[in-house]
Amino acid sequence: MANVTAYENLCSVDRDAAPLHHAASILGWDQEVNMPPKGLAQRSAGLASLAGELHKRYCQPQIAEWLIDCENDPFSKGSVEVANVSLWRESYDRRTKFPSEFIEEKSRTSSEAKAAWAEARKKSDFSLFAPLLERQVDIARREADYIGYEEQPYDALIKLYERGMTTANLQGIFGSFRDELAQIAGEAVERSKANPPREFEGEFPIEGQQMFNREVAEWIGFDFEAGRIDTTTHPFCSGICPGDTRMTTRYYPKDFTASLYGVMHESGHGLYEQGLPDEHFPHPVYDAVSLGIHESQSRLWENQIGRSLEFWKRWTKRAGEIFPQLSGWTPEELTAAVNRAGYSFIRVDADEATYDLHIALRFEVELLLLNREIESADVPKVWNEKFKAMFGLDVPEDSQGCLQDIHWSMGALGYFPTYTLGNLGAAQLMESAMADSTVSAAFSAADPLPLLNWMRERVHQKGSLLTPPEIIEQATGKPLAPDAFLRHLRKRFLG
Amino acid sequence: MANVTAYENLCSVDRDAAPLHHAASILGWDQEVNMPPKGLAQRSAGLASLAGELHKRYCQPQIAEWLIDCENDPFSKGSVEVANVSLWRESYDRRTKFPSEFIEEKSRTSSEAKAAWAEARKKSDFSLFAPLLERQVDIARREADYIGYEEQPYDALIKLYERGMTTANLQGIFGSFRDELAQIAGEAVERSKANPPREFEGEFPIEGQQMFNREVAEWIGFDFEAGRIDTTTHPFCSGICPGDTRMTTRYYPKDFTASLYGVMHESGHGLYEQGLPDEHFPHPVYDAVSLGIHESQSRLWENQIGRSLEFWKRWTKRAGEIFPQLSGWTPEELTAAVNRAGYSFIRVDADEATYDLHIALRFEVELLLLNREIESADVPKVWNEKFKAMFGLDVPEDSQGCLQDIHWSMGALGYFPTYTLGNLGAAQLMESAMADSTVSAAFSAADPLPLLNWMRERVHQKGSLLTPPEIIEQATGKPLAPDAFLRHLRKRFLG
Repeated sequence: MANVTAYENLCSVDRDAAPLHHAASILGWDQEVNMPPKGLAQRSAGLASLAGELHKRYCQPQIAEWLIDCENDPFSKGSVEVANVSLWRESYDRRTKFPSEFIEEKSRTSSEAKAAWAEARKKSDFSLFAPLLERQVDIARREADYIGYEEQPYDALIKLYERGMTTANLQGIFGSFRDELAQIAGEAVERSKANPPREFEGEFPIEGQQMFNREVAEWIGFDFEAGRIDTTTHPFCSGICPGDTRMTTRYYPKDFTASLYGVMHESGHGLYEQGLPDEHFPHPVYDAVSLGIHESQSRLWENQIGRSLEFWKRWTKRAGEIFPQLSGWTPEELTAAVNRAGYSFIRVDADEATYDLHIALRFEVELLLLNREIESADVPKVWNEKFKAMFGLDVPEDSQGCLQDIHWSMGALGYFPTYTLGNLGAAQLMESAMADSTVSAAFSAADPLPLLNWMRERVHQKGSLLTPPEIIEQATGKPLAPDAFLRHLRKRFLG
Repeated sequence: MANVTAYENLCSVDRDAAPLHHAASILGWDQEVNMPPKGLAQRSAGLASLAGELHKRYCQPQIAEWLIDCENDPFSKGSVEVANVSLWRESYDRRTKFPSEFIEEKSRTSSEAKAAWAEARKKSDFSLFAPLLERQVDIARREADYIGYEEQPYDALIKLYERGMTTANLQGIFGSFRDELAQIAGEAVERSKANPPREFEGEFPIEGQQMFNREVAEWIGFDFEAGRIDTTTHPFCSGICPGDTRMTTRYYPKDFTASLYGVMHESGHGLYEQGLPDEHFPHPVYDAVSLGIHESQSRLWENQIGRSLEFWKRWTKRAGEIFPQLSGWTPEELTAAVNRAGYSFIRVDADEATYDLHIALRFEVELLLLNREIESADVPKVWNEKFKAMFGLDVPEDSQGCLQDIHWSMGALGYFPTYTLGNLGAAQLMESAMADSTVSAAFSAADPLPLLNWMRERVHQKGSLLTPPEIIEQATGKPLAPDAFLRHLRKRFLG
């Protein structure tokens, strides 16, 4: 019974840490949403101290012994206990195997690199950022060495965001759909150009946008007794704890759809958080399993649902009541307006048809960097060539090219592909859910809750009991693949 | 040099605790302002855990040794070190001298008593609350025994809120002005009845109230780069840390002055917090010294300034711009409207002329209870007799009499007098400040900042270096007394 005692001890570590996590989440959220600027110094001290307290708890040497007790005398296969033990092991190793000098170097380099990136982007001068990117690549390679990998360093990095995913898997996914995607995108862009959708006119008052967004979020099942929406420059969703999930958005007076799809996206994240298996809190099986699965839920509600004709059949009348300038619009016109395809230099502005080309490009460049096939100084040239090949456009300056995203400066190499995993997952899950006639009939009758319940049961309630590939495979009957997403794009943009 | 090492160790305890305090303050604030209802369970767990962590740090047995080292070889008289050591001693003794069963009993009784009080008030049936009040009186007497006192248990309780204050002092203060106050109040009420002020008409939109309140708060010097205003049912001000002070208010559409004076009151608290001596953070000398001094600052800006003719000479025009229904009003009319005197059964609705009669009554009843001169069951009878004598009115039911306030149910016996100490302090400080011709000339010219600077230097910047009586005496040249307040009331209501 050593394993039972050890398991209980490991559970106590989580219970002891949970309130500190809770405090850190609220402090982090408050810093983005409410904190007056002069509160920063004390806030940073507060967050650093909580991080230190958490580190102390999670790095207790006895944890190593308890883990070994559980591993030597394992619980029954497929049990919650086995999953928790394996997740504890992963995070304990990750927390304890980096030398503290490495952690400090990484943190210092990220601060410097973020500052250099901001300056370089402002001046559109990549040379200011190149040496820092070189240091980040070096750090990422050493990090991969500490973590360990079988084939290549990128394997270790992608695992940080997506358990069970390998570089080879990703290459298979991107390799099989990159060219077809480029072709669909090209045709979609042509069609939008040939047949431009109706344009919005006038102002959409923020109060109206807030009312509309909230009604839509409630309609898809977001529980406002257990969450809220606030306003920030950079929208995000924070699952603070069971019973408290908070999202943010921003408003553009000329285009109500920016905040609408922002809120549907963040509500997707929020629904996932609200659907996690409370009974396993505060242990790792409770947690959201990966960024890719998280993004599959946000993209599902934002794109699969929110940009569908069915959605606008349900919401066009209401939109016209709140925004009088829309009162003459048809559901078809609104659907077309929110599905305009066009090439863009900037990833975050990209539409559904072209978005994943941006990700494919970043994945290719990251891999070349990590494998030392190119140097940081080569990035602009490689980026611009690939961009020309994929989008047919010449990047006018690096601030609109390889300097546009903050991720690499933060050291987040291996992160970008999770966006595409989310898009593919959303399409594959949606296709399977709609094959269930209860779900599809209800959705056709403007009731999305059976769809939500389908996701609850097969995705949200799983927490981290399964790996992301297992979740997709058990929910849809097949491994994650791009074909559902390609079918979806063809239907939506070329149908 | 044992004292230097010990002092440094005691400072480390504070530095170590500060981030946890910070987190607890934000969690407490967020619970009132933002938290969705289903977040309560985790929030309570988070706050309890932080309280436990803080308790552990503040009750380390080495603290006793370090304190003795500092006390045996004291720092120079009047120094910051001496003040910190004496404040550490006070709070260490308070934290360690109660048996844990007593702490639990107190906490449990408060929960039960609050529930019983709410029920009793709802039904206006004092008998439901009486046994719980009896238990709270018993607990308060035992608490006083643990703390220790020279003359009577009430001495120990008032010290919890107001260092340096004794029951005898309070009896002297109330004894010397209760009758004169009653007489002024009576005359003020007659005058308001004989000559009723102009009434407000129409609605005052919340956005307009928010704009007006914010402009006023900025005018008196509240720094919105280091603070904010939000909306809650029960207004409060929370000094989270240097650089972050947050107040709340509530809005009534028919009367913009409710939120205006709410914000001026909370801004007064906020200005005090923003003016505390940052260089002593996070040690006790940095802290606000007492509830009475805190209240002197809130009452100063709310009543002394906010209800003055000078204030309305500055703000009547602006009020008329924001609220068109006020455009025909004169400063004299607005001043009269916000200084209407009238008897009220409810303390929190009382005007400046009658407010302290409510406090005098509560102080007398508390003292009788604590000294076992009456039993809890006698409270309604005693209350109603005293109310009749002071206000000339028959209390129609206990929910409008002895059941109206939550304080006793929470076990906060000894708290009420700090409200009057605040009113007296505000008047005495104001009189002294206005005797400085720079301050009074500026204020006549609608510039309140020299007044703020006067308070900054003599009150805010003192933190807890002096006791409350010392602060008043050094700032005004005499001990706290009711005469300035009585002069103020006579001038304002009978002038």
